Amino acid sequence: MSTPSSSGPDRDAVRAVLDRARAEGRTALTAPEGKALADAYGIPVPGEALATSADEAVARAVELGLPVVAKIVSPDILHKTDAGGVAVGLDSPRAVQEAYERIVAAARRYDPAARIDGVQIQRMVPSGTEVLIGAATDPTFGKIAVFGLGGILVEVLKDAAFRLAPLSRADALEQIGSLRAAEVLDGVRGGEAVDREALADLLVSLSELVTDFPEIAEADLNPVFASASGAMAADVRFVLDFDPPEPPKRFGREEIQSAMERMFRPRSIAVVGASNEAGKIGNSVMRNIVDGGFAGEVYPVNPKADEVYGRRAYASVGDIPGGIDVAVFAIPAQFVAGALEEVGAKGAAGAVLIPSGFAETGRQDLQDEVLAVARRHGVRLLGPNIYGYYYTPEKLSATFCTPYDVAGGTALTSQSGGIGMAILGFSRSTGTGVSAIVGVGNKADIDEDDLLTFFGSDDNTRAVAMHLEDLKDGRAFVEAAREVVPRKPVVVLKAGRTSAGAKAAGSHTGALAGDDKVYDDILRQAGVVRAPGLRELMEYGRALPVLPAPKGENVVIITGAGGSGVLLSDAVVDNGMSLYEIPPDLDEAFRAFIPPFGAAGNPVDITGGEPPSTYEKTIRLGLEDPRVHALVLGYWHTIVTPPMVFAELVADVVRAARAEGIDKPVVASLSGDTEVEAASTHLFEHGVAAYPYTTEMPVQVLGAKYRWARAAGLL
Amino acid sequence: MSTPSSSGPDRDAVRAVLDRARAEGRTALTAPEGKALADAYGIPVPGEALATSADEAVARAVELGLPVVAKIVSPDILHKTDAGGVAVGLDSPRAVQEAYERIVAAARRYDPAARIDGVQIQRMVPSGTEVLIGAATDPTFGKIAVFGLGGILVEVLKDAAFRLAPLSRADALEQIGSLRAAEVLDGVRGGEAVDREALADLLVSLSELVTDFPEIAEADLNPVFASASGAMAADVRFVLDFDPPEPPKRFGREEIQSAMERMFRPRSIAVVGASNEAGKIGNSVMRNIVDGGFAGEVYPVNPKADEVYGRRAYASVGDIPGGIDVAVFAIPAQFVAGALEEVGAKGAAGAVLIPSGFAETGRQDLQDEVLAVARRHGVRLLGPNIYGYYYTPEKLSATFCTPYDVAGGTALTSQSGGIGMAILGFSRSTGTGVSAIVGVGNKADIDEDDLLTFFGSDDNTRAVAMHLEDLKDGRAFVEAAREVVPRKPVVVLKAGRTSAGAKAAGSHTGALAGDDKVYDDILRQAGVVRAPGLRELMEYGRALPVLPAPKGENVVIITGAGGSGVLLSDAVVDNGMSLYEIPPDLDEAFRAFIPPFGAAGNPVDITGGEPPSTYEKTIRLGLEDPRVHALVLGYWHTIVTPPMVFAELVADVVRAARAEGIDKPVVASLSGDTEVEAASTHLFEHGVAAYPYTTEMPVQVLGAKYRWARAAGLL
Repeated sequence: MSTPSSSGPDRDAVRAVLDRARAEGRTALTAPEGKALADAYGIPVPGEALATSADEAVARAVELGLPVVAKIVSPDILHKTDAGGVAVGLDSPRAVQEAYERIVAAARRYDPAARIDGVQIQRMVPSGTEVLIGAATDPTFGKIAVFGLGGILVEVLKDAAFRLAPLSRADALEQIGSLRAAEVLDGVRGGEAVDREALADLLVSLSELVTDFPEIAEADLNPVFASASGAMAADVRFVLDFDPPEPPKRFGREEIQSAMERMFRPRSIAVVGASNEAGKIGNSVMRNIVDGGFAGEVYPVNPKADEVYGRRAYASVGDIPGGIDVAVFAIPAQFVAGALEEVGAKGAAGAVLIPSGFAETGRQDLQDEVLAVARRHGVRLLGPNIYGYYYTPEKLSATFCTPYDVAGGTALTSQSGGIGMAILGFSRSTGTGVSAIVGVGNKADIDEDDLLTFFGSDDNTRAVAMHLEDLKDGRAFVEAAREVVPRKPVVVLKAGRTSAGAKAAGSHTGALAGDDKVYDDILRQAGVVRAPGLRELMEYGRALPVLPAPKGENVVIITGAGGSGVLLSDAVVDNGMSLYEIPPDLDEAFRAFIPPFGAAGNPVDITGGEPPSTYEKTIRLGLEDPRVHALVLGYWHTIVTPPMVFAELVADVVRAARAEGIDKPVVASLSGDTEVEAASTHLFEHGVAAYPYTTEMPVQVLGAKYRWARAAGLL
Repeated sequence: MSTPSSSGPDRDAVRAVLDRARAEGRTALTAPEGKALADAYGIPVPGEALATSADEAVARAVELGLPVVAKIVSPDILHKTDAGGVAVGLDSPRAVQEAYERIVAAARRYDPAARIDGVQIQRMVPSGTEVLIGAATDPTFGKIAVFGLGGILVEVLKDAAFRLAPLSRADALEQIGSLRAAEVLDGVRGGEAVDREALADLLVSLSELVTDFPEIAEADLNPVFASASGAMAADVRFVLDFDPPEPPKRFGREEIQSAMERMFRPRSIAVVGASNEAGKIGNSVMRNIVDGGFAGEVYPVNPKADEVYGRRAYASVGDIPGGIDVAVFAIPAQFVAGALEEVGAKGAAGAVLIPSGFAETGRQDLQDEVLAVARRHGVRLLGPNIYGYYYTPEKLSATFCTPYDVAGGTALTSQSGGIGMAILGFSRSTGTGVSAIVGVGNKADIDEDDLLTFFGSDDNTRAVAMHLEDLKDGRAFVEAAREVVPRKPVVVLKAGRTSAGAKAAGSHTGALAGDDKVYDDILRQAGVVRAPGLRELMEYGRALPVLPAPKGENVVIITGAGGSGVLLSDAVVDNGMSLYEIPPDLDEAFRAFIPPFGAAGNPVDITGGEPPSTYEKTIRLGLEDPRVHALVLGYWHTIVTPPMVFAELVADVVRAARAEGIDKPVVASLSGDTEVEAASTHLFEHGVAAYPYTTEMPVQVLGAKYRWARAAGLL
């Protein structure tokens, strides 16, 4: 069982097989062709040979290694078993010889007219744990590697994992270990652990094979039998596609970066369709850009006005003096292509296409036409069919919605206008500090990976949160995410997760939503934090820039309410974190501050009715002890320590600690009457992610920060 | 394989075995004793017999049915296989005879000094799908029945289901079908479907056995081999406990009802420890009861005051003229027992023990003393260690917290004071209509089942939502829930889900049963809706009384934002509902109201930018068509249909439909700027469960209503 790494794959052998198939107009390979591909990439499959005499059968069997299986080879006998043409478990030369004679005789009896080419001798696959190893071509991500446990587990419970191909060995081992039932591979009920390295070899080799030969659309090693001494594919299947869909256009990182820089920090903006008539989109856009405080040049374009919203208007884009960086379109769809020619001639970096009436209403043709114009001029398109975009560091509200002015570290994007409005309302209501809110709509051109590339290098952005229904180029997104994640968290809400949801996505944008598990696995592989719902997308977006990154896994709960402590503990475990087992000396130190009946260990239950000083001392201790990496606070509203008193003391203690260089994430759950709402807001403004009436959300956002920190390699 | 139903179980046989074990001080049964129990309850186990000669072995084998297994029986040979003392697959009289002789000879060679009692002949268990059937004694619920798929599935994936024992046949079939991998029982990969009825027989029989004989602490049929023709337990194991913990005291339904009636609708209340001193609990309680508007008599008890908060004070409870229904205690723990004697003498129905300082601080003795006094007088105790209780229909705020006056249909209880305060704050902030908020604290006496009994019959309560950490008597709770659920929803947040202790267990079944899944399964079996977190407990409590019960499973989404439609579809599936496949005539009817590019099917995507009339017509159509059973609305904030316009039109359409007797649940997700908050509140006040900035919560509360409606037998 040589692996490709020892001698390198035999690409010529594969090329020859595929060329023959293409020449013959086939999209499937025969079993021997499949074996040839496997052999070329060092994928262990049972050796086999054709024998035309009993002596030859014995010789081949000994070469291949006993035991073997013997099968009649005849173009006229379809059902080999019915014809007595199969013998298994042949474990001696004598048994092989007898089987050869018996099989041939039986076949002649079964059909005296049958042509008999001989007997195939195949090495028996050693028994072992059944797994499935495969590769497929995902419409979003391209070549992906698939690993699943065989039999019931993959068939009934769909226990399979997906990763981008090609895979590193470490990726492959991680993929194998990610199955829910991976424990099976360690041997259960007295069985031996299988050789995971051998399985990883197969996964890596197959992923390289499909990467080297993109015309291999699907590859299926199923079942693979894995044991302590190796792994062998008992069956191999390949499906070819010599006419794959064209991959989406790729821009270089530098190209993307420079276009996005000009779009987000423009010196001049043209508003095509700017209007003085209230209620018109071109009016709202002008008003928001000007009233929002944008400091660059703003050129309204309107052939029927001399002036729009106090700025001199131009009859056409061509009339604008000098160049423009961005043109915001607020004219009907059918006029966009024409005006875009002028925008292109002006050397603009980007066009923001607010109008609808393109692909989403069946006018793919109009959208294609506009894209062609843009490509000719090197103009990047945002939209069409969007609300526009906000970038608070430049006081830029190029949108027909209301302006937004709470600057901060969160960049949010949405594929849907409705979701964009929810993001706007939520951000305003919670005072979320935002760097950008961007609608991407039909994504004729600019996709999430372009935006991610910009936000990744934008010092004003400290976390990126994206709502998406599909990705035009999943692989480009993964590459961008891998580049950004080590520096800042990327949160994604992928809509259309369930099959019902995926169907709705199909009818909405014509997007093809893939199997959700593929997205889930590959986004996680890229280090993306996936939000389970819209509310979490926004809450993670709000909290992640506020919380410092944890430097270790030791989470401690300090609570005034035992009941909150129990729920917070549930939430810590639910969110993939672990409660620190507090060592005796630290436990004693906590105990010195709390009543004798306060609970030992973690949660630290300071009990209800304690004065502010008890909260203060225990929280300070948790912050100052270097073994503690994150704090979850449970507050209980009492007369002795009212909500705002608690909020102020926590803010002070945290600020003091940060001044001393102690920068740990602190989250809080506030239980109490309505005063806890203002207290939570105060805490949030002072760097503590605090929430009233919920024990889940503070721990969820901390869990999101942890998932990011792990993906970023900080832990 | 006779089932117990054909002849009835042989209880005498079981009694004899158990009596012998008890007399011998054993807590485990031998294999023959286990077989005797199985035989007595018609549980099929392999027949077996002892043979002392080869001829006898043949005769026994033929009687039992071939094939058989033969095993040496010798008190001196522990490792039968090592001694060559086992033969399997004996399928003819000749094989049995030879095996007998071979085994005995081998055993003699192995240990010439060994005493040989003979050879055990046991029928071979027919092969089949491996399952586990068991019973255990749960500390909360008592006897429970366990069903799991055998081998890897139960060991690695813990795929097991739990139900209260004894079980009906229907319960057993439902339990079997509830496994995640139940599909395996229908035959996968070409296998036959197993006989589920036979498995149900075993489950029912075992559950009856452990119910009839409570000293059987654990029972384990593992593995059971199930096939198309039946099921047989290959191994049987019992663990006994002749000294089980005492069951909690039970009250009759009538007793509970009459005590609770007097506690929630008292004519007179004594406040023991009432005080004029601001900041004291006894002062807050008095003030809240009086200021809250309670119309009954209020007697402050304070030996040092003539008057408290404008009411004549009494030196002791004994001095109060006439009887009292409830005494609220606001005195230190050590004085409670003494005062309770007087309260008992006054014939009070209940005592509300606000003070802490009992079991939660290690003073179980004080708590036991108080309970003993209460039992002697027939006084029921709420608490100790609670914030008190609210019952808005009587304007009763017997608590030291702030009063609550938004009357409505939701009764909420909490085991923790901190959680109680969160409930109070949330309710006030959202304007939730509440019938009661009750703290149960240490639960020295009154448990959730008592409260549930009252709320079940209370016309002011339309839904019950309970936070609990444990149940003193899980079986009593299930009985109360079963009684209440057909009339109104019961929601439970069970805290401490992940901290389920790993208790030492004597069997595989016992180990499986130490899990949160037991609560989950048995609460669901009782028809309880489980809330995944604190926020959901409160949101379900708020929304369930507002929503009418659905009359069928056909959910339709009507949305102005396609993006919301996708997320709402995801949420519908996530929450166990199904999107109605809209038939062509109804689809056409919807299409008549929406733009040509609006999406067909479900979601009904009316597209953004539509006027109020489009929302109105489509929503009315959804309400009026009898095939549609529930509506999920997705609103998108636009200038054309602003939030409050949408809210008012939906409220009007729903009101008009309800006036015509069309009473369907309607929920809404509002995407938009902050005005959607007021719009959501307006909708909630008009019978539509509406939420801003979330596509998940409206669907979650609808899902909770559906889960209840199914449990209540309405669907």
